[in-house]
Amino acid sequence: MASEKVYDCIIIGAGLSGLVAARNLYRNGSDILVLEAQDRIGGRMVGKSLPSGQWIDQGGQWVGPTQDRFLNLLNEYKVKRFPTPSTGLKVLVFDGKRFEFDGFFQGHYEGEVPGVSKEEWLDATEAWTKFKKLSDELPEGHPFSGDKIEDLDSDTLERWIKDNTKTKFGHWYFSYMCRAVGFSGPSEPKEVSLLHALWGEKIASQSENPEAELLHGGAGQLPEKIASEFSSKIKINEPVHTISYGNGKVEVISQVSSYKTKYVIIAMPPHLAGHILYQPSLPALREQLTQRIPMGTCAKVLVSYKSPFWRKKGLAGIAIGNNKWVELCADSSDPETGVGVIAAFVAGDRYRKWQTLSESQRRDAVISDLKIYFGDEAGSYETFDEVNWPTNPWTGGGYTCFMPPGVWSSMGQALSSSIGPIYWAGTEMSDRWPGFFEGAIRTGEAAASDVMKLLE
Amino acid sequence: MASEKVYDCIIIGAGLSGLVAARNLYRNGSDILVLEAQDRIGGRMVGKSLPSGQWIDQGGQWVGPTQDRFLNLLNEYKVKRFPTPSTGLKVLVFDGKRFEFDGFFQGHYEGEVPGVSKEEWLDATEAWTKFKKLSDELPEGHPFSGDKIEDLDSDTLERWIKDNTKTKFGHWYFSYMCRAVGFSGPSEPKEVSLLHALWGEKIASQSENPEAELLHGGAGQLPEKIASEFSSKIKINEPVHTISYGNGKVEVISQVSSYKTKYVIIAMPPHLAGHILYQPSLPALREQLTQRIPMGTCAKVLVSYKSPFWRKKGLAGIAIGNNKWVELCADSSDPETGVGVIAAFVAGDRYRKWQTLSESQRRDAVISDLKIYFGDEAGSYETFDEVNWPTNPWTGGGYTCFMPPGVWSSMGQALSSSIGPIYWAGTEMSDRWPGFFEGAIRTGEAAASDVMKLLE
Repeated sequence: MASEKVYDCIIIGAGLSGLVAARNLYRNGSDILVLEAQDRIGGRMVGKSLPSGQWIDQGGQWVGPTQDRFLNLLNEYKVKRFPTPSTGLKVLVFDGKRFEFDGFFQGHYEGEVPGVSKEEWLDATEAWTKFKKLSDELPEGHPFSGDKIEDLDSDTLERWIKDNTKTKFGHWYFSYMCRAVGFSGPSEPKEVSLLHALWGEKIASQSENPEAELLHGGAGQLPEKIASEFSSKIKINEPVHTISYGNGKVEVISQVSSYKTKYVIIAMPPHLAGHILYQPSLPALREQLTQRIPMGTCAKVLVSYKSPFWRKKGLAGIAIGNNKWVELCADSSDPETGVGVIAAFVAGDRYRKWQTLSESQRRDAVISDLKIYFGDEAGSYETFDEVNWPTNPWTGGGYTCFMPPGVWSSMGQALSSSIGPIYWAGTEMSDRWPGFFEGAIRTGEAAASDVMKLLE
Repeated sequence: MASEKVYDCIIIGAGLSGLVAARNLYRNGSDILVLEAQDRIGGRMVGKSLPSGQWIDQGGQWVGPTQDRFLNLLNEYKVKRFPTPSTGLKVLVFDGKRFEFDGFFQGHYEGEVPGVSKEEWLDATEAWTKFKKLSDELPEGHPFSGDKIEDLDSDTLERWIKDNTKTKFGHWYFSYMCRAVGFSGPSEPKEVSLLHALWGEKIASQSENPEAELLHGGAGQLPEKIASEFSSKIKINEPVHTISYGNGKVEVISQVSSYKTKYVIIAMPPHLAGHILYQPSLPALREQLTQRIPMGTCAKVLVSYKSPFWRKKGLAGIAIGNNKWVELCADSSDPETGVGVIAAFVAGDRYRKWQTLSESQRRDAVISDLKIYFGDEAGSYETFDEVNWPTNPWTGGGYTCFMPPGVWSSMGQALSSSIGPIYWAGTEMSDRWPGFFEGAIRTGEAAASDVMKLLE
């Protein structure tokens, strides 16, 4: 079945990063082929249309003002944006007590929140300020060398939180940030390197407001738009199991066929790149690195309602709290459709317990928490969609990867270094907005550019 | 190519654990098939014959008095043992200063060591006593539930060492134990969970003397002996990429063919079991667990000499120290051959630096350290064999796996739980002597026994 044809470049993985790399190479006149394991393209950029005409994004959905490349892409494909709905009071539930308040959202410490004592508030704020300062002091780029790197990489974030907060609220607030919002992952603070969390805050900070806007029609519409130029170059349902390389040529063997190419761009999460058999073996640093980069633990649940009922009650549709299952939810309603959509996240150990429940129990669990946040009307939903990223074998988790202690300082340099004709792409490899669409575009563009230079 | 034949059980992986499982099922009359990815059987039980007639073990080699099942296996196959050579003075090199001494070996704090001050010695001893006590308090079995589990699992071993030692010697001694000898891995203390290290000491303790004896002819002779009964049931060079299961049947698809079976035993390190595509997907806990269990980082280097020259100098051939590359070496000379063999280990960050050197630089680096330990005669070697376990894609590291922080307490329960017709074996799954041959035998026997009950 092997053909004698030699491609200029084979791109493995048709998520955003792989599609961007493929597009740039194709536009440059290169002879490319894209191999995708799943029965669809898009990776974690994937949408769904509801019967109501509303879209939901099962993967990422937001964009922020400093995500230049993603904004360019949206402009190029004429995808319009709207401000993420946030008017009205936010909700905080802590230890079963519910408070409505204004002027406070994740990562921003403005004003005061009723129900949180001054001592608790100060505890969270002081710890946050300390964390920010440590974060700012990190060197540029991937954090694998420099002063203090190994020391910061020897602790878990949990240890740091324990050492730097005094109240239950302060501890929970930091833990929630790690599980549901920032730093990477989402992960439990006990599993992530302090260094990695600090770095995540430095290069993908909530203070840059990465969830400022949403896209009319959702992010999930983009993969097909991007691929439309070179659809005939994409093969789906073709998991790759072996890559042989040497003497300037590469053989890529999928479960369907085998192909020859000059270069290969592997655009997938690092742990999945580690599932491929390389002949000869990759250097030890790389082989072992991919064993040490797990994906975060999170389900995204999208609940739609006839209308955004919470607004009539003066609520913003944004809620956080140490509830049993849902620690964070956000309003994703598109004003053009009039439908109400809440995106809720079940992450970390909460996710791990939740996924042992039956389907109806999982639904009831989430709805029960939404009722606590937004009132009984939350029970009258139209559609309920859960996306269990950890059970998707071609993703393995969500939103993105994180580094356990010791990984950056011992083998981080192997994360994005090319090896012979093999180049790496994928949002996890980015040193700016990793885990976001912006990071996917950056690494896709960089890999394509590296290969283009070699093809000249 | 798919056959209609339905096996009773397919065993994936022909290391010791898979071979033991296969043997027990075969002897019980089951219709089995063993699929092995590599071009040889044995996994990490692998030997080599030197021109001199001496054997070396490129994988594990020692046996201890409490490793019942391994001792039984040796008796069954009439493999004779001899005490690990240890007569004479041991060598310690610390910060470039070299001392010879008696009465001290890894994990045993007896007597005093010249060159180590009383304060340093007390520091190491007290920390060790504390560590042992914490270790003893752990519950039986895999450490994923019980008092203090999550707390102990939230720290790295490095944090604990820093908090519990005051001197550079105390810190190094503990770190060396983690890198070169015990707990699991070998790993750097910054990457391993404190809980995992404590548990490793509890269920595979150096105080049980697991390196008490060596085998005439080496451990590497055993795989062929075990397999001889059912050689025709083993296929090598058959990496498995997909397992489909459901309705009481399993389809196992390798890169060569596909097979149907009632049950399957997957006998490989957990991270490699995670490389297989399961249809339907495994539960989230298991899918994500295998992303979080890296293999340790270690090369085994075997250097042979015309004779054990160190003995004439009154040395035991056992040395430890914070040298640049080799922190531990041991005498592996078989008295029947008269040849001298030193087994040296390059582990953790030392290994990661070492593997970037050229082949001749790597050799010179190790020999240079051996000269520091044993004198210039160490330069006059006959053979030099390095085994780079981390670059073997079908092992991924050595000696065994370790758990980073947070893994045991969040998803440890998924390590050995069967899923439908899929059973797990491999030394990493054992709750006694994991990472040793004994653990491999235990989990192989257990998996075979579980499947046999179902086949009745």
